[in-house]
Amino acid sequence: MTTPDHYISSLQNAQVKHLVLLQQKSAERRRSGLFVVEGRRELQHCINAGLSVDTAYYCPDLTEAPAGVHAVAVSREVYAKIAYRDTTEGVVATVEARQLALEDLQLGPEPLVVVLERVEKPGNLGAVLRSADAAGVDAVLVCDPLTDLYNPNLIRSSIGAVFTVPCVACSSAECIAYLKAHGIAILTAQLQDSSLYYDTDMRRATAIVMGTEATGLTQQWRDAADAHIRIPMLGALDSLNVSASAAILMFEAVRQRQAVAHQP
Amino acid sequence: MTTPDHYISSLQNAQVKHLVLLQQKSAERRRSGLFVVEGRRELQHCINAGLSVDTAYYCPDLTEAPAGVHAVAVSREVYAKIAYRDTTEGVVATVEARQLALEDLQLGPEPLVVVLERVEKPGNLGAVLRSADAAGVDAVLVCDPLTDLYNPNLIRSSIGAVFTVPCVACSSAECIAYLKAHGIAILTAQLQDSSLYYDTDMRRATAIVMGTEATGLTQQWRDAADAHIRIPMLGALDSLNVSASAAILMFEAVRQRQAVAHQP
Repeated sequence: MTTPDHYISSLQNAQVKHLVLLQQKSAERRRSGLFVVEGRRELQHCINAGLSVDTAYYCPDLTEAPAGVHAVAVSREVYAKIAYRDTTEGVVATVEARQLALEDLQLGPEPLVVVLERVEKPGNLGAVLRSADAAGVDAVLVCDPLTDLYNPNLIRSSIGAVFTVPCVACSSAECIAYLKAHGIAILTAQLQDSSLYYDTDMRRATAIVMGTEATGLTQQWRDAADAHIRIPMLGALDSLNVSASAAILMFEAVRQRQAVAHQP
Repeated sequence: MTTPDHYISSLQNAQVKHLVLLQQKSAERRRSGLFVVEGRRELQHCINAGLSVDTAYYCPDLTEAPAGVHAVAVSREVYAKIAYRDTTEGVVATVEARQLALEDLQLGPEPLVVVLERVEKPGNLGAVLRSADAAGVDAVLVCDPLTDLYNPNLIRSSIGAVFTVPCVACSSAECIAYLKAHGIAILTAQLQDSSLYYDTDMRRATAIVMGTEATGLTQQWRDAADAHIRIPMLGALDSLNVSASAAILMFEAVRQRQAVAHQP
C-alpha cells in the first residue's frame, strides 16, 4: 500500500512544483545542485556514472519502481505534468549534479580535448558531447557557456554523453592557462589565416577549439592558438553546423591516431 | 495604397488558411506542388536556385515588399499566424516545388553522392544537406523517405542547402539500379563485416549510404554494397547521430580527394 509519503497525486505538491522549476530554470539547478533526467536510459546513465539519484518519480500505471534508488509513486496526472518530453516510460528523476573542475580532470597521454567557447544552444552542445563520446575524447571544456550542462534538452540530445564524457565549465582564461600548463596544443577552428585541418598534426596532445556559428572565436583564443585550422567549404552556403564541424575535426584526430597505431 | 486584393487582414482568408495547411501537411504540399519558406534568406535561396515564387506575404509594419516577386501585404495579426517559426523578418512565401528525378541529375566526373535510406526526422535530413553543401557533394538521394523535402523544419535546419544541393527522392531499388548503371561504388555504413572508413578508397565515384539510427540499412543495400564501412566507436555509448556520421564520412572523401589534388 502506498502512503501519502510515497504517493503524490496533487499537481500542487511542493516536490512536483520544484521538479518543474528544475526543468525550466538553470538558476534553480545551480542553487539546489540538482537536475532532472527523464526515462530509464538517462537514469541508468546517471547511476553508471556514479551520480547520486535524489528521488525517482515513477507512475505505477506505466512502470515499476526503479530499483536501488529512493522512489516515489505519482499519479498519471502528475506524471503528465513532469514528463517534460512527453515520454511514456513513466520515470522522471532528480539527480545531484557533479561539477568537475579543470584540476579534477585525469587526462591520458597525448590527450584529445574539445573546447567550445560561448556555446549557446543546448542541443548543439549535446550533439557535440555525443560525438565526443564516440571519438573517445578525454574531456570537453565549455568556456563562458550560455547554457548549463544540465539543461534537459542538452541531456536529451547528448543521449547520456554528458554523463560519460568528462565535462568542465570554466572561463576561457582559465582554460587557456590549463592547456598551456599541460602542454596541450591549441588548434582553433577559424577561416582566416588557417591551414586545412587534415594537414595539421593532431597526434600530439591536442585541444580542438571552436566558437559560435555566428561570431566564431574571440581574439583571446586566436592569440593563444598554436595553429589555426579550417574545414574547406566547397558549397554555396559557406557554413557548417558547429556539431558537424566538431565531429569532422574530432574524427580526423581519431584517424591520424589510429593510422599511427596501425603501423607495424 | 493597398487595396483589398493586395492586403489581407482576416485570419479567415482562404490564402492564409491554405498557407498554414502547406506548412503543416505534406499531403497538401504534394497535392498543390507548393511549399512555404520563411524569412528573406530562405526566399533568396529559392530565387537563386531558380524556383518560382508563387506569392510572398509580407507585413508592412516590419519590412518592405520583397522585390521581383508577386507580393501581398498582410496585417500584423495575419503575419503572427503564418510566421511558423516566430520570426520577425516579416516575410513568408509560397514557392513552387521542383521535383528532381534521378535522370535529371548532372553528375561530375568521379561524383560523390550521399544516400539516406528511410530518413525520418526532417531536422536530421536538413543537417545532412547542410554538410553536403559544405562538402560539395554532387547529389543527396533520399530513398523511401518518411519525410518530404519541403518540410518547414527540414528547410530551416538545412539553412537553404535543400535548394543548393541536387536532391532526389526515390525508391531504394531505383537508386541501387541508378548507382550500378553509372559505375558509382556503393559504400554502406554498417557496424558488421565492415572496414574502417578511412581505410576505404573514396576517390573513385562513390555513394556513401546510411540508414536510420534505430535500425540501420535494409538488407537490399547491404547486398548491393561494394564495401561496408564503419566509423570506430571509442566511447561508452556506441552511438553517433546520423548527421554527424554523414559529416565525418563526406569530409573523409573530401580529404582523400583534396590530398590527391595537393600532390604535384
